[in-house]
Amino acid sequence: MQNHSDLLDIGVIGLGVMGKNLALNIADNRYRVAAFDLDSTKRDALLEQEQKERPALQAQRILGCSNLSEMLSSLAKPRVLVLSVPAGAPVDGVCNALLEAGIEQDDIVVDTGNSLWTDTVAREAQYQDKFIFFSCAISGGEMGARFGPSLMPSGDIKAWDRIKPIWEAIAAKVDPKTGLPIERQEPGNPVTEGEPCTTYIGPAGAGHYVKMVHNGIEYADMQLICEAYQLLSDGLGLSAAEVGKIFARWNQGSLNSYLMEISADVLSQADPLTGKPLVEMILDKAGQKGTGLWTAVSSLQIGCPAPTIAEAVYARAVSTQKHQRQQLSLLLAGPEALTLSDDERAAFIDELENALYCAKIACYAQGFQLMAMNAQERGWRLDFAEIAKIWRAGCIIRATFLQSITQAYQQAQRAGESLDNLLMAETFSLALSAKQQDWRRAVARAIMSGVPVPCIGSALAYYDSYRSETLPANLLQGQRDFFGAHTFERIDMPAGEKYHLNWSHSERTLEKL
Amino acid sequence: MQNHSDLLDIGVIGLGVMGKNLALNIADNRYRVAAFDLDSTKRDALLEQEQKERPALQAQRILGCSNLSEMLSSLAKPRVLVLSVPAGAPVDGVCNALLEAGIEQDDIVVDTGNSLWTDTVAREAQYQDKFIFFSCAISGGEMGARFGPSLMPSGDIKAWDRIKPIWEAIAAKVDPKTGLPIERQEPGNPVTEGEPCTTYIGPAGAGHYVKMVHNGIEYADMQLICEAYQLLSDGLGLSAAEVGKIFARWNQGSLNSYLMEISADVLSQADPLTGKPLVEMILDKAGQKGTGLWTAVSSLQIGCPAPTIAEAVYARAVSTQKHQRQQLSLLLAGPEALTLSDDERAAFIDELENALYCAKIACYAQGFQLMAMNAQERGWRLDFAEIAKIWRAGCIIRATFLQSITQAYQQAQRAGESLDNLLMAETFSLALSAKQQDWRRAVARAIMSGVPVPCIGSALAYYDSYRSETLPANLLQGQRDFFGAHTFERIDMPAGEKYHLNWSHSERTLEKL
Repeated sequence: MQNHSDLLDIGVIGLGVMGKNLALNIADNRYRVAAFDLDSTKRDALLEQEQKERPALQAQRILGCSNLSEMLSSLAKPRVLVLSVPAGAPVDGVCNALLEAGIEQDDIVVDTGNSLWTDTVAREAQYQDKFIFFSCAISGGEMGARFGPSLMPSGDIKAWDRIKPIWEAIAAKVDPKTGLPIERQEPGNPVTEGEPCTTYIGPAGAGHYVKMVHNGIEYADMQLICEAYQLLSDGLGLSAAEVGKIFARWNQGSLNSYLMEISADVLSQADPLTGKPLVEMILDKAGQKGTGLWTAVSSLQIGCPAPTIAEAVYARAVSTQKHQRQQLSLLLAGPEALTLSDDERAAFIDELENALYCAKIACYAQGFQLMAMNAQERGWRLDFAEIAKIWRAGCIIRATFLQSITQAYQQAQRAGESLDNLLMAETFSLALSAKQQDWRRAVARAIMSGVPVPCIGSALAYYDSYRSETLPANLLQGQRDFFGAHTFERIDMPAGEKYHLNWSHSERTLEKL
Repeated sequence: MQNHSDLLDIGVIGLGVMGKNLALNIADNRYRVAAFDLDSTKRDALLEQEQKERPALQAQRILGCSNLSEMLSSLAKPRVLVLSVPAGAPVDGVCNALLEAGIEQDDIVVDTGNSLWTDTVAREAQYQDKFIFFSCAISGGEMGARFGPSLMPSGDIKAWDRIKPIWEAIAAKVDPKTGLPIERQEPGNPVTEGEPCTTYIGPAGAGHYVKMVHNGIEYADMQLICEAYQLLSDGLGLSAAEVGKIFARWNQGSLNSYLMEISADVLSQADPLTGKPLVEMILDKAGQKGTGLWTAVSSLQIGCPAPTIAEAVYARAVSTQKHQRQQLSLLLAGPEALTLSDDERAAFIDELENALYCAKIACYAQGFQLMAMNAQERGWRLDFAEIAKIWRAGCIIRATFLQSITQAYQQAQRAGESLDNLLMAETFSLALSAKQQDWRRAVARAIMSGVPVPCIGSALAYYDSYRSETLPANLLQGQRDFFGAHTFERIDMPAGEKYHLNWSHSERTLEKL
């Protein structure tokens, strides 16, 4: 351990991609960091990078520790210890090691991994008498962690008061006038003005739940862009670079978002090995780490319709079954070929832009409704205007229209209304109403050309379902009453009154239960 | 307790709709039944019904018990006790009461409720030293239980040997020549010929898992029919009775199934109160009891694409949010009205028939793949030809094409092939290839007319996804590598080799990990 005259501000445990970049970000903001990893080469790599990035004249702000006892003795009390380790057993592993190393009751452990939110709830209770188990879900990937992520802290409010200044310093910043991110891509000189992308979310688990839904939306958003790519490439025969240019153009309009920007970038990237478009050399099997499926599972369990998120999870699953697809591609017939005039091709590209916008809004509506329904079940009071605000920069789904979502919730709050579904906000109901005809044409064309659009299509079915004052669930209730005596309600009788028809009797009579 | 000269064959605990009808069915088959319910009026109702149904000259075969001790002492050993109580805590409640009443180690408890399959696995272990906890999932509703259900037993094979004769007697029967159910709708005189709809499924939990997937398919199948109903009524303006006639006609063809039959029946039913079509008096809010969502959750957790089942669960959820739909119906615009000529209307009805057939096959493909993937994970060896066979009669999803599914699996078994996806079976790949163009036209027309078809549409996206040798997951992997360094595989390099591009560097280089 090197000599230091005074105690440090914060410890970072786990120096993988996220932990390392968080530590550098915190140090940029003039906090002094104790850093530890079981793999000492990771610790050394971090120290080396700090030396490389920061001019020699400035004091070194990161201290490498050899073990957790050393870390605990180097930190000011109450200590703040940031965990950046894989979700699951490793989190408890580090917590137990900290107990052995002498962590104290008012010390704060902040879990920043992709933990399942119910695990976080359980851990807060489990470690209650030993230290404060706090959590902060993070979005923004490697670059976000380094230069400003979106931070979703939750748990004991006292812990939040203690860490808030650090959190607000390291978070991404938004220009309050435009609602757009203030970019930072260089070490040192952190952004000190603007609105920080962090806010206290709620009780234990709330932050990880909100982050989980963020990721569910992210899954759907990515898949929507991929479907547009397949329609333009397989459907219209455009090259990767041409699709990249269209995406770059869309990124200037209402579709402006980080994911659209990087998709355009990926599509225009040449492969260093072959010189061909890189995207065409990448194998079409998608990985996943769990947060998308957790979101879909939660939506099913709560009874919140989130079909576009679930379809995105399934789309990744289908992609991994490439062998089956290869076999089936030889067995299953596709549609008759469509031939489009130049005018029709141009019209289709414009329709697709509108379809993508509408489908994205439908995804966000699903995600926000899911958060609201789970919050109600858990008794959390979530501020959705604040949540939309902290997603405007730093996180993967940052997009211009998060400013519109923020304003929609603020407006509802001012009017004392709850916004049960984002589609009720005037800004979105008007936009979708104006674009829905294009949305339909794009999906119909995809279907007639044989390109699968599970997410753009399911989002449209979601829109049309909510647009339907009556749905055919009356027949479904009739079926259920027929085979299972499950009863039904009547439109001409008070809500809650149950009726059953004696379907199996020769004379069918109606029974009130 | 009444006098009986000898010991009885089987006990039934829980005399609700299912338990009562099971007891009557067992008695029809000349077994003698001990019956108990905490609510003695249910027991008395059962005894009364037996007296009413069976001519006075025949011996009474059901004995009402006042408590579980009485039941245990009335039964031949090793005892067989059928539980027909709600899933969850009540199952353990009865098991504990049986322990107190003196159940013995080689007695068999058969749980016939809709238990979650993992609970069944846990219970087998939990009661291991006390009695044999066996399970048998049942489908067929009230009428199935009474006159022949589909029975999915699993657990200790010794228990199966003991109960098999009773199970084969009470199960629904199929004419082996036609593959069609042998109907029985009257008390007494059970069907003694034909293939019984029961087979040993596998280790503990397997039967309930298979039944859970059966119900998932059932959810999707019901929703598909409902979507066709809405298209014909809202889309074409047909009356309920007219739609009922179309469904009755479809039920004569390849769509022949119990659900199609009862849907036609429900649609033609007049409301006893108003004389209007009953279906139009039923409130369009669908109930659900959990097995559909369990199926969707399992598919997400296993990574098996089952989007049409999930969409069906979500469709029920949307239906319950009627207030939100009423509000949104005023805010969200629909499509321009379509006007169809008489020829186009007739063509649309035929297209829809084919669309429904294709979508159903896609649902079944999802369900069977899910069972296969879960079986592989659990180490179960399931016989899918046998499973399809026992679904040909008795259960809610019984349908003519289950005979084709049976034959497809039998053929694959004979050829020594595994049928990884039902769509690979020639009978289905040819049928879907022939009908897919109609499927597309029907979905496109639904979309252009504003009628939501989440399930028919998602099934088509499933078909087109599996028909795609390449999917746009290559772009998705590019996105993931860009923001999260998640790496990708290359099409020109060996499987499993991971690559990463240094997206954030000014000179982007490719790294092999």
